[in-house]
Amino acid sequence: MADGDNEVDVLILGAGSGGYACALRAAQLGLSVALVEQSKLGGTCLHVGCIPTKALLHAAEIADATREAESFGVLAKYDGVDAAGVLAYADGVVSRLFKGLTGLVKSRGIRVVEGRGTLTGSHEVTVEGADGTVTLTGRNVVLATGSTPRLIPGIEIDGTRVLTSDDALRLDRVPRSAIVLGGGVIGCEFASVWRSFGTEVTIVEALPRLLPPEDAASSAALERAFRKRGITSRTGTSVTGVTTSDEDGGGVVVTLSDDTELRADVLLVAVGRGPRTEGLGYEEQGVTLDRGFVTVDDHCRTGVDGVWAVGDIVPGLQLAHRGFQQGIYVAEQIGGLDPRPIDERGIPRVTYSRPEVASVGLTEEQAKEQYGDDGVATLTYDLAGNGRSQILRTQGFVKLVREVDGPVVGVHLVGERVGELIGEAQLVYGWEAHPDDVAPLVHAHPTQHEALGEAFLALAGKPLHTHS
Amino acid sequence: MADGDNEVDVLILGAGSGGYACALRAAQLGLSVALVEQSKLGGTCLHVGCIPTKALLHAAEIADATREAESFGVLAKYDGVDAAGVLAYADGVVSRLFKGLTGLVKSRGIRVVEGRGTLTGSHEVTVEGADGTVTLTGRNVVLATGSTPRLIPGIEIDGTRVLTSDDALRLDRVPRSAIVLGGGVIGCEFASVWRSFGTEVTIVEALPRLLPPEDAASSAALERAFRKRGITSRTGTSVTGVTTSDEDGGGVVVTLSDDTELRADVLLVAVGRGPRTEGLGYEEQGVTLDRGFVTVDDHCRTGVDGVWAVGDIVPGLQLAHRGFQQGIYVAEQIGGLDPRPIDERGIPRVTYSRPEVASVGLTEEQAKEQYGDDGVATLTYDLAGNGRSQILRTQGFVKLVREVDGPVVGVHLVGERVGELIGEAQLVYGWEAHPDDVAPLVHAHPTQHEALGEAFLALAGKPLHTHS
Repeated sequence: MADGDNEVDVLILGAGSGGYACALRAAQLGLSVALVEQSKLGGTCLHVGCIPTKALLHAAEIADATREAESFGVLAKYDGVDAAGVLAYADGVVSRLFKGLTGLVKSRGIRVVEGRGTLTGSHEVTVEGADGTVTLTGRNVVLATGSTPRLIPGIEIDGTRVLTSDDALRLDRVPRSAIVLGGGVIGCEFASVWRSFGTEVTIVEALPRLLPPEDAASSAALERAFRKRGITSRTGTSVTGVTTSDEDGGGVVVTLSDDTELRADVLLVAVGRGPRTEGLGYEEQGVTLDRGFVTVDDHCRTGVDGVWAVGDIVPGLQLAHRGFQQGIYVAEQIGGLDPRPIDERGIPRVTYSRPEVASVGLTEEQAKEQYGDDGVATLTYDLAGNGRSQILRTQGFVKLVREVDGPVVGVHLVGERVGELIGEAQLVYGWEAHPDDVAPLVHAHPTQHEALGEAFLALAGKPLHTHS
Repeated sequence: MADGDNEVDVLILGAGSGGYACALRAAQLGLSVALVEQSKLGGTCLHVGCIPTKALLHAAEIADATREAESFGVLAKYDGVDAAGVLAYADGVVSRLFKGLTGLVKSRGIRVVEGRGTLTGSHEVTVEGADGTVTLTGRNVVLATGSTPRLIPGIEIDGTRVLTSDDALRLDRVPRSAIVLGGGVIGCEFASVWRSFGTEVTIVEALPRLLPPEDAASSAALERAFRKRGITSRTGTSVTGVTTSDEDGGGVVVTLSDDTELRADVLLVAVGRGPRTEGLGYEEQGVTLDRGFVTVDDHCRTGVDGVWAVGDIVPGLQLAHRGFQQGIYVAEQIGGLDPRPIDERGIPRVTYSRPEVASVGLTEEQAKEQYGDDGVATLTYDLAGNGRSQILRTQGFVKLVREVDGPVVGVHLVGERVGELIGEAQLVYGWEAHPDDVAPLVHAHPTQHEALGEAFLALAGKPLHTHS
C-alpha cells in the first residue's frame, strides 16, 4: 500500500510477536498490511523478555563454567561479573535481531506506523505519533497489544530496590542479595541468573511449589536443584508488607505471611504479566474483556466481526511462540486458507534456568483428570543413565505420560540444556505418537536427546540402559 | 544360566556397544546369554571413544568459555589447561557409566566371561582367561569384536609423538602444535579439542574436504569455522613421509604430497578404524570377510546359520548407536520377534567439534543421484536468524533436502550444540514427514531447534523469520 492509502486488508495494533508474525504472514499471502507499532518492533519478547533474559542466562552459564572450570581441568580465575558488560552483550544480541526483523518487515512491504494506537471504530485505529495523528481502517483488525509486568497493590516499584523484570534487565549492578516474589518462569529465571552471578537469592511463591503449571515432579526437581545451588524457595508463602530502607546500604525489608522478615538489596516482583488492553478503546467498540484479557473463540475471533486478537492479551500461555502461531493462524484465515486450529497443549514450555525445565502436553495430574487414574501410565528415565548429561554433570529426568495403550500425551524434562529436547518431544506429542512409533528409531550417542529414545524404549517395554 | 552350564541361547563375542546391547535385550526376552568380554565392558565407545572424547570436548568448551568470558561480561582469567585434570574428569565420567553398565548387565542375569575368545566351532567360542580356558557353545553366536584405530604402513606409532586416538586420549600434556592426519569425525574432534586448549593445529586430509561423507555444504562450513578458529585444513593432500626428531624438543616432521614439510609436537593418525576380526577363527568357521569386515545380509546374518554380526565389524557407519540398534535387532530376531530392518540412512551422525556437524538421511548429492537433479529441492536456513544461536554467538545452518512433492529425505546441521537437534530431525526422517507435517507444529522460542521449525515453514512455502 502507498503511505497515503489508509485502508488495508489487515490492520494490526501492536508489533510484538503476535502482531509482527501476523503481518509477515499476511503480506506473504498478498494482503495489504499496516502494523501499528506501540512500542518497538519485536515487542516484549525481543526487547524486555525472551531474548535479553536468555542472554543473561547465557552469561550466567559462562560465569558458572568459569567458576567451576578447574573441576574440568581448565585453569581459570573467576573475578565476578561486570553488569555493564553483560548488558552490552545482551543489547548487542537484541540490536542484531532487531535490525534483522526491521529489514524483514520492510522487505515484505508492510507499512509500519509508529505511535500510540487506539481503536476508534470497530475497524478503525487512530494513531497519535510524533508526526501527528493518522487514522487507519482495516477490513480486518488484529489486536496484539501484548502485556506488561503485573504489579501488586501496596508494593511500590521504585526501579532501583523494588523492581519489575524490566528494571531487573537494566540493573547496572549485581545485587548482593535478592528476594524474588513469584516462582513462575520469570522469577525462576532471574533467581537462576543472579545466583550464578553470586547473589544470595530467596524465592517467595504463594502457591505450594515453583513453576505451578508444570508437572509436580519437575517442580520438585527444580526446587531441589535450586536448593543445592543455594537458592532458597519459600513456597506456600505470601508477602504481607514491603518497606524500603535507607539504612545499612539501602535495602528492602519484606514481611511474609508467616510473620518472618526477609532483608535483601533488591526485591523483584515477578508475579506474572497482565494484558495491555486498558484505555485502548477495545470495550467501547464492543470487544469483550474478561479481567483485562480479550475474550476470543477457537479461531482468535473477538465478538466483533472482522476483529481478531492474538498474543498475550488472549487468555492462556503468554509465550512468544504462541503469539507467532496465533498471528500466522489469523493471517491465514483472513487470507482465505483453512489452517488447522492451534492445540494449546501442543505448545512447548521452557524455563531456561539452571537446570532447565521443559514440557509439552499434559502433566500427569492433568492426564489423570482426563483419562482416569487407571487410564494413564508414566515412565521416568533418570539422566544419571545418560552419558552426555554425566559429561555436563547435570541431574534431571525425562518423564513420559501416556494414555494406557494410547499415545504419549505429555513429556516433561528437567536438566541443563534439555530445552532443546522439547523439539523432538513436541513432534511426538503433535503427531500423537505411540511409544512403539519412536522406540525403533535410532538416537545419536552420546547426546542428551538419547535419553528421550531410552525413555521411549522403556515405555515400549524394552528398556536398554535402564534397570527394570 | 548357571556358571557351569556352558550352552546358552545367545553367545556374544565382544562386550562393546553392539555386544552388550544384544545381551541386554536378549536377556530381557528371557533368553540365556553369555557375553565374552575381550576388553572392558562398554568397549571402544565407553573407554576410548564416544564418552572420553566428548568429555574432552566439554572441557574444551569450558576452556573457550573461560577465555571468551569477558565478552559476555564475566570477568575471568584463563590460565591454560591442566591435562591431568582433564583426564581425571574424563575418567570420572567413564568410571561412573562403567559402574552403571556393569550393574545393569549383572541385574539382567547375563553371564560375563572375561578373556580372549576365539570362534573354535561354528557355534563354539573358546575363551582364554586369567583362570584358564572355557569353552562355550551358543544356539546363536553373535560376533561383536569391534574395531581398532587404523594404521598406515610406514608410519610408526610411538605413543608419545606419533599417536593413535587411544594415545591422544591419554596424553599427559597439551601439545604446542599438532598435525592431525585425517579429516573425518575423529580427526576433526581432536583438532577442535586441541585448538580450544591452545594448540596450533593442521589437519591433513587426502580427500577434497573435511568430513567427506557429510553434505558438501556442511564440510565447507566446518572448514570455514575451523579456519576462523585458527585450524588449518590441508585437504586433497596426503602424507608421503613421517620422521620423528629428537632435536628442538623432539617433534615430528611430516612430508606432504605437495612436497611441503610440516613440523609439530605430535602427529595424530586418525584415518578411521579397522574391524577387529583377525585371528579370531571367523574365516576358519566359514564366516565371509571382505577387507576384514564381516559380510552380512540385511538381517545381520553371516553366511553361517545361527551366526550373526553387529557393530563396527559390519561394513557401514562405525557408531555406537548403530551397534546398539543392530544388537537389539539381532536379539529380537533370535527371540522370535519380527523387528523391522534398520534403515542405515536413518541413523543420525554427529561430529561434536566446535561447531558441531550433524545429519540424518541423504546429502543433497545422494538425493540427486536417487531422485534426479530435478527431483530434489533444498532449503537452507541460516542460524543468523535464530535468536538462541545469536546468544551463543554461533554460526551455521539448517539444510533440508526433500524429494520434490515428497518427504524430507535429509537434514544437515552446522553450529554449536546442534547435535541435540538431530533428535527431532531423525523423527522427521524416520516418519517420512512432509514439510507440511512439521510446519504447523509450534517450536519453542528462543531455542536453536526453532531453526528447524523455521526451515520447515520456509520449505512448506510460508517462511516466518526468513527473507523470501
